[in-house]
Amino acid sequence: MPNNEFKMKVFTLSSNQALAREVVDLLGIELGKCSVNRFSDGEIQLNIEESIRGYDTYIIQSISTPGNEHLMELLVMIDALKRASTKTINVVIPYFGYARQDRKLGARQPITAKLIANLLEKAGATRVIAIDLHAPQIQGFFNIPVDELTGILVLSDYFAKKNLENTVVVAPDNSSIRRARKLANRLNTSIAFIDRECYKTNNPEAVNIIGEVKGRNAIIIDDMVDTAGNVTLSTQALLENGVHEVYACFTHAVFSGFAIEKIQESHIKELVVTNTISVPDVMMPEKIKWLSIAPMLSQAIMRVQNQLSISIML
Amino acid sequence: MPNNEFKMKVFTLSSNQALAREVVDLLGIELGKCSVNRFSDGEIQLNIEESIRGYDTYIIQSISTPGNEHLMELLVMIDALKRASTKTINVVIPYFGYARQDRKLGARQPITAKLIANLLEKAGATRVIAIDLHAPQIQGFFNIPVDELTGILVLSDYFAKKNLENTVVVAPDNSSIRRARKLANRLNTSIAFIDRECYKTNNPEAVNIIGEVKGRNAIIIDDMVDTAGNVTLSTQALLENGVHEVYACFTHAVFSGFAIEKIQESHIKELVVTNTISVPDVMMPEKIKWLSIAPMLSQAIMRVQNQLSISIML
Amino acid sequence: MPNNEFKMKVFTLSSNQALAREVVDLLGIELGKCSVNRFSDGEIQLNIEESIRGYDTYIIQSISTPGNEHLMELLVMIDALKRASTKTINVVIPYFGYARQDRKLGARQPITAKLIANLLEKAGATRVIAIDLHAPQIQGFFNIPVDELTGILVLSDYFAKKNLENTVVVAPDNSSIRRARKLANRLNTSIAFIDRECYKTNNPEAVNIIGEVKGRNAIIIDDMVDTAGNVTLSTQALLENGVHEVYACFTHAVFSGFAIEKIQESHIKELVVTNTISVPDVMMPEKIKWLSIAPMLSQAIMRVQNQLSISIML
Amino acid sequence: MPNNEFKMKVFTLSSNQALAREVVDLLGIELGKCSVNRFSDGEIQLNIEESIRGYDTYIIQSISTPGNEHLMELLVMIDALKRASTKTINVVIPYFGYARQDRKLGARQPITAKLIANLLEKAGATRVIAIDLHAPQIQGFFNIPVDELTGILVLSDYFAKKNLENTVVVAPDNSSIRRARKLANRLNTSIAFIDRECYKTNNPEAVNIIGEVKGRNAIIIDDMVDTAGNVTLSTQALLENGVHEVYACFTHAVFSGFAIEKIQESHIKELVVTNTISVPDVMMPEKIKWLSIAPMLSQAIMRVQNQLSISIML
Amino acid sequence: MPNNEFKMKVFTLSSNQALAREVVDLLGIELGKCSVNRFSDGEIQLNIEESIRGYDTYIIQSISTPGNEHLMELLVMIDALKRASTKTINVVIPYFGYARQDRKLGARQPITAKLIANLLEKAGATRVIAIDLHAPQIQGFFNIPVDELTGILVLSDYFAKKNLENTVVVAPDNSSIRRARKLANRLNTSIAFIDRECYKTNNPEAVNIIGEVKGRNAIIIDDMVDTAGNVTLSTQALLENGVHEVYACFTHAVFSGFAIEKIQESHIKELVVTNTISVPDVMMPEKIKWLSIAPMLSQAIMRVQNQLSISIML
Amino acid sequence: MPNNEFKMKVFTLSSNQALAREVVDLLGIELGKCSVNRFSDGEIQLNIEESIRGYDTYIIQSISTPGNEHLMELLVMIDALKRASTKTINVVIPYFGYARQDRKLGARQPITAKLIANLLEKAGATRVIAIDLHAPQIQGFFNIPVDELTGILVLSDYFAKKNLENTVVVAPDNSSIRRARKLANRLNTSIAFIDRECYKTNNPEAVNIIGEVKGRNAIIIDDMVDTAGNVTLSTQALLENGVHEVYACFTHAVFSGFAIEKIQESHIKELVVTNTISVPDVMMPEKIKWLSIAPMLSQAIMRVQNQLSISIML
Repeated sequence: MPNNEFKMKVFTLSSNQALAREVVDLLGIELGKCSVNRFSDGEIQLNIEESIRGYDTYIIQSISTPGNEHLMELLVMIDALKRASTKTINVVIPYFGYARQDRKLGARQPITAKLIANLLEKAGATRVIAIDLHAPQIQGFFNIPVDELTGILVLSDYFAKKNLENTVVVAPDNSSIRRARKLANRLNTSIAFIDRECYKTNNPEAVNIIGEVKGRNAIIIDDMVDTAGNVTLSTQALLENGVHEVYACFTHAVFSGFAIEKIQESHIKELVVTNTISVPDVMMPEKIKWLSIAPMLSQAIMRVQNQLSISIML
Repeated sequence: MPNNEFKMKVFTLSSNQALAREVVDLLGIELGKCSVNRFSDGEIQLNIEESIRGYDTYIIQSISTPGNEHLMELLVMIDALKRASTKTINVVIPYFGYARQDRKLGARQPITAKLIANLLEKAGATRVIAIDLHAPQIQGFFNIPVDELTGILVLSDYFAKKNLENTVVVAPDNSSIRRARKLANRLNTSIAFIDRECYKTNNPEAVNIIGEVKGRNAIIIDDMVDTAGNVTLSTQALLENGVHEVYACFTHAVFSGFAIEKIQESHIKELVVTNTISVPDVMMPEKIKWLSIAPMLSQAIMRVQNQLSISIML
Repeated sequence: MPNNEFKMKVFTLSSNQALAREVVDLLGIELGKCSVNRFSDGEIQLNIEESIRGYDTYIIQSISTPGNEHLMELLVMIDALKRASTKTINVVIPYFGYARQDRKLGARQPITAKLIANLLEKAGATRVIAIDLHAPQIQGFFNIPVDELTGILVLSDYFAKKNLENTVVVAPDNSSIRRARKLANRLNTSIAFIDRECYKTNNPEAVNIIGEVKGRNAIIIDDMVDTAGNVTLSTQALLENGVHEVYACFTHAVFSGFAIEKIQESHIKELVVTNTISVPDVMMPEKIKWLSIAPMLSQAIMRVQNQLSISIML
Repeated sequence: MPNNEFKMKVFTLSSNQALAREVVDLLGIELGKCSVNRFSDGEIQLNIEESIRGYDTYIIQSISTPGNEHLMELLVMIDALKRASTKTINVVIPYFGYARQDRKLGARQPITAKLIANLLEKAGATRVIAIDLHAPQIQGFFNIPVDELTGILVLSDYFAKKNLENTVVVAPDNSSIRRARKLANRLNTSIAFIDRECYKTNNPEAVNIIGEVKGRNAIIIDDMVDTAGNVTLSTQALLENGVHEVYACFTHAVFSGFAIEKIQESHIKELVVTNTISVPDVMMPEKIKWLSIAPMLSQAIMRVQNQLSISIML
Repeated sequence: MPNNEFKMKVFTLSSNQALAREVVDLLGIELGKCSVNRFSDGEIQLNIEESIRGYDTYIIQSISTPGNEHLMELLVMIDALKRASTKTINVVIPYFGYARQDRKLGARQPITAKLIANLLEKAGATRVIAIDLHAPQIQGFFNIPVDELTGILVLSDYFAKKNLENTVVVAPDNSSIRRARKLANRLNTSIAFIDRECYKTNNPEAVNIIGEVKGRNAIIIDDMVDTAGNVTLSTQALLENGVHEVYACFTHAVFSGFAIEKIQESHIKELVVTNTISVPDVMMPEKIKWLSIAPMLSQAIMRVQNQLSISIML
Repeated sequence: MPNNEFKMKVFTLSSNQALAREVVDLLGIELGKCSVNRFSDGEIQLNIEESIRGYDTYIIQSISTPGNEHLMELLVMIDALKRASTKTINVVIPYFGYARQDRKLGARQPITAKLIANLLEKAGATRVIAIDLHAPQIQGFFNIPVDELTGILVLSDYFAKKNLENTVVVAPDNSSIRRARKLANRLNTSIAFIDRECYKTNNPEAVNIIGEVKGRNAIIIDDMVDTAGNVTLSTQALLENGVHEVYACFTHAVFSGFAIEKIQESHIKELVVTNTISVPDVMMPEKIKWLSIAPMLSQAIMRVQNQLSISIML
C-alpha cells in the first residue's frame, strides 16, 4: 500500500475494469468513485463522485476496441480532473492503441500515435505509464515523463517454468526481432525470424523462415495478436519446416475479427497473452492462457506515488 | 465556383457524405479523393489519394452519432493534412457535437466542448466553419477564426412561405429564447417559452407555459432535437393550453433513441430540420421535413476561399 | 483560518480594497504587503514588500471601472508573483469585466472576455475564482481551473427573510432567464420575462412582458446593473401592467453613467446588490441595499487553500 | 505607394491619430475604417467597418498616456483582426510604453515590458515595428520579427542643419551614453555624461559632469523626456560648468506632470522631440520643436509590405 | 530550376558545403550569401548578407561531427531567419545526428533526438527534409511536416548495375532488417541477419549469423557506419561462414575513431556510402565508394518549392 | 545545509566541476551521481546514476568555451531530468555565454541569448540562477523565474580590503558604466569611462578618456574579459594619461586567444576575476587573482531550496 495513499485516487473507465479492480486490490485501496455512461445520442457522460482537489490521480484505461470511444473517455476524464484541481494526472494505458501508426506509412498518412500523444498532453495528462509500446520511440512522442513497463517479464517467467527443451524464439516479422532477442536472452536460447515481405508479389501467403528451427520447440513472440492471421500462418510454416511444437506469446490480446476461431483451429500448442486488454466475454479456447499484469501495474503505481525508481522493475 | 479553385480541395469523411456531395456540386468542383476505413480492430485507416501540397483544404464532417468516431476521424484527417504540407486546414463542422457540455454542469464535470476545441487546434486546424453552435460563446473556445452560420435563415424562409396566421414562436426551454426571438423577428410575431425547471421536484413532466399562446399556431424552435422528449411534451402542453396547431423546427436533427417514433405518434403538425446531420437511412414520417443547408455552406466556403466577408450572409 | 496559512498570502490591488480587508479579517490573517501606485505618466508601479517564495498567493481584484487599469494591475501583479517564485497564483475576480463581450457581437468583433482569459493564463495565473460570470461558458475560455461562485445565494437569502407575498421573479431580458429560474426555485415561485427585442424597430423603449405579473410583487434579477436603463424601464412597464411593488437584485453593481440618479428617481421599491465592485464613495440612495460576498469569498479561499470541495458551497 | 496596397489596411486607434493620418497620406492610401469608443462603464467598444479577410493589416498605436488604455485598445484590436481572418497583423508602436520596466528593478518586481511583449504575441500580433526602444534587448522579448527604427536620424539631421559650433553631446545618465555616441558620430563631435548616481545619499540633486564641456554648446540626448526633471537639472549643471548654450533632443515626448512648465522656465535654448506620442492639445512653448517621424514610418510600412530590407533605413 | 526561384534561397552552414554547392548547381541557382564564423572564444558569428524578407529559405546542414557545433549553427541560423521575416524556413538535414538516442536507452536517459526536434521547432523551423532517419518514428517527434528521403535508392541502383550473382543482403543487427528487406526487394534476393545480442555475456565479439549465406555474395546494409567495428566484425564472421565476397553499404558515413583504417585493413571488398556527411579531407581507401545524394536533394527542394508531391520520389 | 536536503540533488557537467565541488562542500552534501562522456563521434553520452524522482535538482554548468558543447550538455541533462520525473530543474549558469548577442547587432542577425533562453525553457528548465548577465534585460528573455547574482560584491570586498588611495573606477566602454557606478558606490569614489567608438574611422586603436584620472589609481571594471584587447589598450591609455597604477576586475574570465599572454605583458598591476568559468589548466601569471563565487552560489542554492529571499543577498 502506498504511503501517500491519503492523497491518491485510482480511477477506471470502460475499457478494462477487471484489471483496474485487481490493481487496486493489490494496492489495498478502493477504486475512485466515478461513472462513465452514454447519453442517448452516444455522447460520453462522466461523473466523478468524490472530491479530488490536490490529489494525485491515476486513470487506468486501455485504448482497445472500440479505441476511439475509449480514447475519448480518457480525454474527457483528463479534462474533468484538470478542471477539478487535481495535483497530478497519471494516465495508465496498458494497451496503447493506434501504436502501429507511429510513422507515415505512405504518402499523406497521419502519424496517429503521435496525434494521440499530443491530445493526451493537451488535455492535461502529466505522466504516462504504458506497457510494451509498439515501438520504443513512442516514448519520444511525449514531452511528459513516460514509464514503459514490459509484459515480456511475465511471459518469460511463464515459459521458464514450463521448462521446454530445445527451444527457439521466433519473430513473426522484422519489427519483432528486438522482442524475440529479449525473450531468448531470458530463456538462454537462440532466435529465428520469418521474412514476411519477400516474394510478396507472387504469393502473399508465402513465408520464408530465416534461422534454424528444425526439430525444435518454437515460441513465437510479438507485442500484439490482432487478427491472428500472422501467427497462424507462421505456425503452419514452422510446422512444415520441421518444428516440433509451436507456442506463441503476446502482451496485447487484440483478438479482432475471427482471431479466436483461427487460433482454435490452428496447430498452435498454446498461446499466452496478458490482460492489458480486457478478456472478451466469450467462450475461450483452452489453448489460450491469460496472465495478469496487475501485480506489475500496481507495483509501478505504488512506486510512482512514492517517488521510487521504476527502472528497477525492468 | 471559387476563383481560387485550382488550389482548393473539399474533403468529406464518414459523417455526412450526401451533404458534402451537394456542397461540391454547388461549387462546381469534385470531392477531394480520400477514403476512411476501419482496420479489423476498429482503428481508423485513412488514405488521401491525391497531392495536396500548398492547397487550401476544407473537411466537411459533423460530430454526430457516433460522435467519438466522427471526431477522431476528423482529428486524424487534420493530422494527415498538416503533415502533408497543406496551406490551410478549414474544418467545416455542420453539427458540433458535445456542444451541450459547454460549461461545468456540476462539480468535477468536464467542459467537453472546450476540450474538443483544444483538440482541433492542437491537431492543426486553422479555421472552423460551424452552424448554430449550442451557445455563441463556443466561438470563444477557439483561438483560430470561427465563422458561425445559422440555420434559422432557411427555417424562417420556410415558415415565411407557409404564411401561417396568428403565430407565436415558442422556446421549449430557457436557453432557446434567444433563437425564438430571432425567428419571431423574421416572422414579425411574438414569443412564449416553456419554463421546464419549475415545480421540478413534484412532477418532472409538468410543463409551465409563460406567454400567450391560446388559439394561435405555435412554432417551437431549438438548435437541436435529440430524443424528442422535450418537443413532444411541449406539444402536448401547448395543445392542452389551447394552441391551434403545433409546428417545430430545429437546425440539428440528432434523433436519438425513439425520437422518430415519438414524433410520429405526437400531435406535431410538422417538424422541420436541416441536413447538418445525415438523414438516417430509415423510413421517415411524412411530417418530418428536411431542408438543405448545402447552398449556405457552399457559399460560405466559396467566400472564405475568395476572402470575402461572411458576415454579409447572416 | 486555513491550516496552510503559513504559506499563503492574500493580496489586493486598487479595485476593491474594502472587500479584500473584509475577506482577510474573516480568514484571520493579514493582507499581503504590497503597494500599487502610478508613475507620473500613469504607468503602474508595483511593490511587493515581503518574501513570497514558495507561497500560495491570492490576488483579489475586480475588473471594474476603470477596467483596463484594473486588468493591467492584475496582469503586472501576476507577472511579478511568477518571477518571484511563488508556488501558485490564484486570481480572485469578484467582478469579471468585459464579460458581455463573450462572443462575436457582429462582424469583425473581438471576443474580449476570451482575450482576457488568454492574457491571464499567459501572464501566469494558475487558478481563477470568480462570481456570477455573465455566461457560464466563460469557464471554458480557460484551461486552468475556474471556481465560479454565485451571488444568488446571498440575494435569495435576503429575499427569503423578507417574506414577500405573491411574488414573481422577472428576467429583464432573454439572457437572464436562467438566473431568474434559479432565484425562483429558491423562493419557490414562478417567473416572467421581458421580451426586449420585439417591435424593436418601431419603438426602442417598448417593453413586452411575457408571463403573469398582475397584482404580484416582482423581483427583477440580473447578473449586473450597469446604466440602470434596463431595470428602470422594466420597473415602469411592470407597474403599468399591474405589478404591486418592484424589487430588483444584481450581483454586480456597475452603476455607470447616471445609474444611481435613475434608480433614485424610479419607482423601484428596493434594489439589492453585492459588493463585488467597491461601493462608490458618493451619497447612496437608501433604497439601494448592499450585501457582502466577503463571507463566501473567504470560505472559498479557505477551502481552496485546504484542498476541500468548492461545489459544496453552491 | 506600396505595390501590394490592394490587400493592405492601415488602422489607427486612440493614441496618435494625427501621426497615423500623416502616414497614410504619405502612403497615398486611406485609413482603415474602424472606430474605438467606450461603453458607459469605460469598456472598449471596437468596430471594424470593412472586410479585411486575407489582408495585411497595420495598427498604429503608441502605448502612451493613458498607457493601460492604449495597450488594451491594441490588444482588443489584435484579437478582432485575428478572428476576422486577416493574413498578418503588424503592430506599429511608435512609443513602446513601460519600456523602462525591462528588467527586475528590485526584489519581486515585474518585468512589464516583457509582459507586454507576451500579451501582444498571445493576442495574435505577427510583427512589431517600433522606434527607439528603451533598451535594444527588448527586441529579444519577442519571438516574432521586430523592426526597430530610430529617431536619432531625424534629430541628427535637424542639428546638422543648425550648424552649431564647438558642440558636445551630453548623456544625462548612464543608460543614454550609447545614444549620445550615435548622435556624436553623426555630428562628428565628442561626448560627456552626467553621473547621476554618485554622492546620491548626501544630495539627491547633486550632478557630476564627466567629460569636457566648458565653453561648448551642449546637446543633451535621451530616448524620452518624461517629467523633464532630469533634463532641467542637467541644463542647470551644464550652465554652471561653463557650457555656452544647452540644447536637448528626445525621440519620445512623454511630458508628464509639469514637464512643459519646467521646460518653459528652464534655460534650455531649444528642446527637440518627435511626434511618436501625439502632441498635447495645449499651448506649447516656442522652445519646443516637433519633428515628424511619419516619413520614416510610412517608408518602413511600405518596405515591409513589399518585403524590402528595412536595415537600409538605419 | 524551380519556378518560384525568385523568392527562394538555399543556404549552407559549416557541415557540408560541397554537397550544398552541388545541390544549388543542379537547381541552377546560387547559394544564399551568408557566412558562419567563430569569435575568439568559439561562439558562433553569423552573417546573412542579402535581404530575405518574404523568401522561402532552405538551410542544408548535417548534424554530423562535431554535432553540437553543427546543431547550434543551425539553431542560430533559424533564429536569424525567423527574425528577418522570411516566409518559410525549411531545414534540410542530410544526416540527423543523435538519432540513435530516439528512446530511453536506460533509466534516467534523455531522448536526445526528440529534444533536437523540439529545439528545431522552437527556434522556428517550418519544415524538415531528412534522409534515412535512424527510426521512421522520428518523423513523429515533429509537429511540422517532415519529408524523409532514402539513400537506399542510390545504393540499390549502384548494386543493380554491378550485377553481382547469388547475393544475400545482410542486416548487421536487429534494427537494420527493415532496410535489408528494402534493398533485397529492389535486388530481388533474400536476406540474413546477424544476431549480435546473443551469447553476449560470454564473448562480446561472438557473432551469430541467422539465415543462409554460404557461397553467396553478401551485401551488408545499415543506415550508418560509425566506428566500423560492427561492419568489420560482421565481414569476418560472414567470410568464416563461407561467404564468397562481402560488400557493404550505408547512407551515412560517420567514420569516427579509426573507422577508415579498420575498413582498409578488413576483407570488405567494397564499402559504398553517400555524401550526406562531408567527405573527410584525408586519403581515402579505394575500396570506399562515394555516391552523391545531391540529385535527390535538389529534386526534393525543387518539388517542395513548387508544391509537388515528394512521395513520388520514394 | 539546506533543510530540504533529503529531496535535493546538485549535479555538475563538464564546464566547471571544481566550482561545483566547492559549492556542494559548502552545502555539506555530495554531488549528484552522473557522468557525461562523448561517444566516438562526439555525441554526448549522459548517465544519471541514482534515482531522482520527485527531487529538486540543480545543474551547475557554465556556457563557457566550448560554449556549444556545454550548452548542449545542459539541454540534454535537462531533458533527461524532465523525463526522469524530477520535481524541479534549477539551472545554475555561472557564466551565461552568448550573452553579448542579446539584441540584433545588424540586419538579419540572430538574438542568440534569447534563443538560448527559449531552448532552456523548451527543454524543461524551471528556474535559472545566473551571475552578472551581460545586460539585465536578459532576465526578461525568460518566462520562468531568474535569480541574478552579482560578482561585484566579492570584487568590491577585495578592493575595499586593499585600501587603495585616490582611486577612480573606469568603465572600458559605454555598456559598462552601470557596473562602474556600482563598484564606485561601494568604494565611495568617482568614475570615468573610455569612449571607444569615437574617431573610429581614423584610428581604431585610439582611446578617448572621459573623466578625470590623472594621478589616481584606476580600477577598470567590466562583466567579462575575453581577448583582453580592450583592457590592455585601456591600461596603456590610462597610464599615458597620468594614471598612477591600473587595476582591473571582471566577473567572467573568458581569456580567449592570447588573453593571458597580453595581460602578462601589459602594465596592469593586478587583474582580479572570479571562477564562474573554470580556471584554465595552464601556468597563470601572478598578477591574475582568482576569487571564488562558490560561497555566494551555495548560499543562493540553499536559499532557493528553503524558499528564502534571494534579494537579501544583493
